[in-house]
Amino acid sequence: MEAKNLTEDFIKNIKNYIPGISLDCVIFGYRNGVLHVLLLKYRNVDAWSLPGGFLPRDKEMDDAANKVLFKRTGLTDIFLTQFNTFSSLNRGWDSSEQSKLVIKNLQTNWPKAHQKKLKAWFHQRFISTAYLSLIQTEKATLTMDDLSECCEWKPIADLPKLVLDHKLMIEMALKYLKVRINYLPIGKSLLPDKFTMLDVQTLYESIIQKQLDRGNFQRKMLKLGIFNRHEKLMTGASNKAPFLYSINHEVYSRLLEEGIGYF
Amino acid sequence: MEAKNLTEDFIKNIKNYIPGISLDCVIFGYRNGVLHVLLLKYRNVDAWSLPGGFLPRDKEMDDAANKVLFKRTGLTDIFLTQFNTFSSLNRGWDSSEQSKLVIKNLQTNWPKAHQKKLKAWFHQRFISTAYLSLIQTEKATLTMDDLSECCEWKPIADLPKLVLDHKLMIEMALKYLKVRINYLPIGKSLLPDKFTMLDVQTLYESIIQKQLDRGNFQRKMLKLGIFNRHEKLMTGASNKAPFLYSINHEVYSRLLEEGIGYF
Repeated sequence: MEAKNLTEDFIKNIKNYIPGISLDCVIFGYRNGVLHVLLLKYRNVDAWSLPGGFLPRDKEMDDAANKVLFKRTGLTDIFLTQFNTFSSLNRGWDSSEQSKLVIKNLQTNWPKAHQKKLKAWFHQRFISTAYLSLIQTEKATLTMDDLSECCEWKPIADLPKLVLDHKLMIEMALKYLKVRINYLPIGKSLLPDKFTMLDVQTLYESIIQKQLDRGNFQRKMLKLGIFNRHEKLMTGASNKAPFLYSINHEVYSRLLEEGIGYF
Repeated sequence: MEAKNLTEDFIKNIKNYIPGISLDCVIFGYRNGVLHVLLLKYRNVDAWSLPGGFLPRDKEMDDAANKVLFKRTGLTDIFLTQFNTFSSLNRGWDSSEQSKLVIKNLQTNWPKAHQKKLKAWFHQRFISTAYLSLIQTEKATLTMDDLSECCEWKPIADLPKLVLDHKLMIEMALKYLKVRINYLPIGKSLLPDKFTMLDVQTLYESIIQKQLDRGNFQRKMLKLGIFNRHEKLMTGASNKAPFLYSINHEVYSRLLEEGIGYF
């Protein structure tokens, strides 16, 4: 799509969005034993952002977030939860070098007659509700939005330059995940359909960022009763081959409702 | 304060608030072994609401929420966390009989010249960020706001008629509390400074709404290492008297950061 048409399209539809309110999605995926986050790169600028959008007047926030998720990954019916609404006084597009570059670059395509209107829109203080999502990366078909030139999984330990407070959003989402690891559908959403107990342990270790004792972890995990055991994963000697497991969705859903309790 | 002056005051200051954005606080307290929530009753109407407000242009959401909390309870530096942003399409003041009554009653005090402006303000769809707070009721000095005729603790099992979606907010806050009981500072915030293990157990039971085994609960609780043990609570025979405990804030804070993990 031509950048000019894109701008015209946005000007035409701007009245359908609520001013001052936006949403952003921290979408985590797990690949090669490392936690990743889905990011978009703006065209012609070294500036990345979380997938997100404005709130249409006829939509609830959760629906708008689900739509963002679907548009970027092609997935529906996946785990998505609000984790914080960001309202810092300096969350405008003049808050960082990256953000300024993005707007400067966008501006070159704004028709003169609409410069004022668009400038006013982007210089608002947006109160942004942030969502956390967990997806199986091999099931996602990544699609960039009209303003971006790519849409990629980036390892959380090596993030590129981000606009606005998106780095803070990712940090808070990670902390949220870490503290709540016991009752979020982490295994269900991030692992492939069949996996070994070592896969589960490696995933947990990548989130809580410490090593866990293998025997103890496996014993406690299996005690939860949320797994179905399948055939062995045959790669070497059969006596050492680990079992494959899948999630027992019924037990898992019940446990999620109740929380995986310490007491 | 005269209702008329109040309205004039609001009209004068309306420009200092961001349209379409509000916040509400579900403030839980624990008294007589029962969980309570703090509610305000509107004047001359059988309609109650959560303490809340609009977002001033020069404030962040968390600061605005802390201000609401302070104004209603006189307390600062207490546990307060966002738990959800509500954006239902029908969260206007025409969504329930109670809400309609409140606006009808407020309207009788609106000066004719400002009817249109005020009506437009109250008929907006407000996106509301809801907070959950836990406080020690004996330390709070309750103060009603200008629109209300009382400010009271109401037991969660017996709530009065509420405006808008405030009932849903309380239900979601309770669910949030129940699932996250393992890592929130529930004991620290809701119990008095000194308490017995039975007090802690009764509090937990009132939140998760099931009976816990006394020996098992006590053993696991003490294992966390978050309590200082004090003198016995002398009410009967000294060999049966329970120990009093207080929170070891240093260990507690660390545990909160890490989460009280299952693994």
